[in-house]
Amino acid sequence: MSKELPNRENNFSGWYNQVVSRAGLAEHGPVKGTMVIKPYGFQLWDNIKDVFDGMIKKTGHVNAYFPLFIPKSFLAKEAEHIEGFAKECAVVTHTRLKADSDHGIVVDPESKLEEEIIVRPTSETIIWSMYKKWIQSYRDLPLLINQWANVVRWEMRTRLFLRTSEFLWQEGHTAHATPEEAQKETLDILELYRELAEEYLAIPVITGFKTNSEKFAGAEKTYTIEAMMGDKRALQAGTSHNLGQNFAKAFDVTFQTKDNKKELVWATSWGVSTRLVGALILTHGDDKGLRIPPKIAPIQVVIIPISRNEDQQKIVRDYIAPIVSALEDLDIRVHQDWTDNSPGFKFNEWEMKGIPLRLEVGLRDVENNNVVIVRRDSGKKSFISNIEAMENIPRLLDEIQKGLFLQALEFREEHTHIVESYDTLKEVIGNGGFVRCGWDGTDETEAKVKEETKATIRCIPSDESPEGLRCVYSGNPAKHEVIYAKAY
Amino acid sequence: MSKELPNRENNFSGWYNQVVSRAGLAEHGPVKGTMVIKPYGFQLWDNIKDVFDGMIKKTGHVNAYFPLFIPKSFLAKEAEHIEGFAKECAVVTHTRLKADSDHGIVVDPESKLEEEIIVRPTSETIIWSMYKKWIQSYRDLPLLINQWANVVRWEMRTRLFLRTSEFLWQEGHTAHATPEEAQKETLDILELYRELAEEYLAIPVITGFKTNSEKFAGAEKTYTIEAMMGDKRALQAGTSHNLGQNFAKAFDVTFQTKDNKKELVWATSWGVSTRLVGALILTHGDDKGLRIPPKIAPIQVVIIPISRNEDQQKIVRDYIAPIVSALEDLDIRVHQDWTDNSPGFKFNEWEMKGIPLRLEVGLRDVENNNVVIVRRDSGKKSFISNIEAMENIPRLLDEIQKGLFLQALEFREEHTHIVESYDTLKEVIGNGGFVRCGWDGTDETEAKVKEETKATIRCIPSDESPEGLRCVYSGNPAKHEVIYAKAY
Repeated sequence: MSKELPNRENNFSGWYNQVVSRAGLAEHGPVKGTMVIKPYGFQLWDNIKDVFDGMIKKTGHVNAYFPLFIPKSFLAKEAEHIEGFAKECAVVTHTRLKADSDHGIVVDPESKLEEEIIVRPTSETIIWSMYKKWIQSYRDLPLLINQWANVVRWEMRTRLFLRTSEFLWQEGHTAHATPEEAQKETLDILELYRELAEEYLAIPVITGFKTNSEKFAGAEKTYTIEAMMGDKRALQAGTSHNLGQNFAKAFDVTFQTKDNKKELVWATSWGVSTRLVGALILTHGDDKGLRIPPKIAPIQVVIIPISRNEDQQKIVRDYIAPIVSALEDLDIRVHQDWTDNSPGFKFNEWEMKGIPLRLEVGLRDVENNNVVIVRRDSGKKSFISNIEAMENIPRLLDEIQKGLFLQALEFREEHTHIVESYDTLKEVIGNGGFVRCGWDGTDETEAKVKEETKATIRCIPSDESPEGLRCVYSGNPAKHEVIYAKAY
Repeated sequence: MSKELPNRENNFSGWYNQVVSRAGLAEHGPVKGTMVIKPYGFQLWDNIKDVFDGMIKKTGHVNAYFPLFIPKSFLAKEAEHIEGFAKECAVVTHTRLKADSDHGIVVDPESKLEEEIIVRPTSETIIWSMYKKWIQSYRDLPLLINQWANVVRWEMRTRLFLRTSEFLWQEGHTAHATPEEAQKETLDILELYRELAEEYLAIPVITGFKTNSEKFAGAEKTYTIEAMMGDKRALQAGTSHNLGQNFAKAFDVTFQTKDNKKELVWATSWGVSTRLVGALILTHGDDKGLRIPPKIAPIQVVIIPISRNEDQQKIVRDYIAPIVSALEDLDIRVHQDWTDNSPGFKFNEWEMKGIPLRLEVGLRDVENNNVVIVRRDSGKKSFISNIEAMENIPRLLDEIQKGLFLQALEFREEHTHIVESYDTLKEVIGNGGFVRCGWDGTDETEAKVKEETKATIRCIPSDESPEGLRCVYSGNPAKHEVIYAKAY
């Protein structure tokens, strides 16, 4: 049952797939590229969702729900947008099946739709078609709406959580009276994404903005949080777009200003998805499986009772009961594993699932009024008194939360290189890691580096200082300091 | 702005549409039959969702997520199931768009899928295709999984919340080792639905089971909660199905029993949807709009400050602040309306939105240390002291919750008739209402009554006592006592 995981160093991708499967997070669905999120994986996503939903509500956003189906013509209204999504659209063309004596159940050709329908790949177009009705005056602004939804982007090469044809996400869509306000919203959300990633998922991120070739189809400017995974590749973990007036133009959404003029509305959109669950695994996982940061762990403490017969079981059970109550009173999420499996099996299973703390309680512990505490992050085991356990657990969870973040931060720092020559860039990219260097700002340079090294410009970091730098490729004065890396 | 609603007595349907629109609950989407759920409507649904999610988690169920897309062949595996859903399926046939010089953006014919994909109308088939992998032994049972999701059933005649092509719902899908356990689960969930409807939505329901012609396509037995709407028509508000071994057979899902035999698994499925928001409006709405039961109201108390200038505003604001804190400390959801609109406009608007209690605070109230409290259910207005207000509000909310339920219950009782002759049945159905009478148990009788009166058998109620009854149509001995009504 508990055979070892594929080697994380040599076979990161095999290791990832096995962790997803053996921790009970997700499986492939029957239609190519789709994903079944299993209860444990879904609870992780739900916890992430709850945190971010709280953040956006506190900042004045409200949830709504817009339809899954978009008329084909809508998608085509914004030129860059359709360009970006045309090649990955699920298209609904018919609305009935019927029995056919030769071929069993077939699509009824008579049910063909006059206009084909697109299953939303993102909702800018349908939402701005509604905003046209909802926005007349400056009094209707800002409009700060979010939705939690499924979207579909047809993908050829898929990976569970990281890239699937259907995924779950939140998409915020806001409308503003001024460009300054839209820009502020774009950056405020970027900061919430940073907070979500760093404070809750314990994933350090670099904030910045995308080059033109990497920005969202239809955006003026795309901001991003970029993280380094355990194989030193980059993962884009969330994006916040300043859409300018592009969608307002496409859908003719204007408002009457305070001084009675008619103006196009300014827009933002932003999203994070179930990809964050993938980021979590790729950042914190180790040779034993997942390691989940306590703040979003569905179970924070798992208790493994150890007993050989029913009499012992009763003694252990009585001993554990007040410990569980005490922990629950502290709002700690506890689970007792009373299944028939062996202690060894249970240790492996809950390590695989990444539970931050394990308590082991056997007869000897009862006699000594002890518990054994094992930390998932370090594997460190301590024998402490029952009373100490109660006092220590909140502190330990806090330590683990911070420790996972620091470990990931150190790893990123260790594998981030400030580079001045193209040869060094190629060497670093070859070994894996982030390169920080100058870029002359041209599409040509970006494309050449990508072609030659497979590294892309992940972002122009918020703290760039391009002054005095030269482009690592062309040698011309740098327009920006950038991060190059191979990415998911 | 505040023109009157269509007359609720003469034009119930026009009244309903206007309430949905003017309370800001929902609008039609651009694709025929789809619905945009606006923030206020969505918050109502979210509150209902939170309540039910808590109920099912407390009873051992967990959430997961299964794909939107189902292979066409899966749907066809259970004969009754495909029969039931074939005529209302959105079918995905292509995965790309492309630019065409003559026709603009067109579907790329080269992206045609080998096997067409169905957008889930419900998820039994895809879930049981996964359960086949997850269930091997009695140790894997029961499996108690739920998902919150969108589903699509192509509808020709749609009404917001009541019947839309896409809707939001929860669908529970459980697997059991014995038929007794599956039956118990079916009925336990029915009881949770009753509790949700009666205790939270304040909608009295009749529990019972459906006749063969009205049961879910693929179920052995469908249980239902049926409610009477304000126009005396019935609305099916939730259903719980005992699926027997039908889907286990279709997907070959067997398990090893404790004594080492191989057996097919027993199943249930059950769902409630955004239709409940429609039920809420149709049950409690009145000439002024919505009336929302306090337990699920997004806002329970709205405060309308009344002031003529900035000085007055400041006085009123200072007076209100501690009232708001005190209410929030009691976990009461409060909103202050400081917009520029006139008090009259605000009264109408918040009455339309159905907020249970309105507090009006003007300068005279400040002087007298008073507040004015207006109940949305009865319109009753009282002047009471500030301190009394704090003490009274939780009690008033409780009274309103119970009062709305009792009012709806009285209405239903008043319009439910025990009937012994077919003529009387026709008369009652003509005037609107529920008929309780004997039925001989034949499909023919059911079909004839439906054809002649447009009434259907809503359910065989849990408390039926058919002994000694005769079928109101055929005169033969009754097999069941049933409820006939016209339905949504």
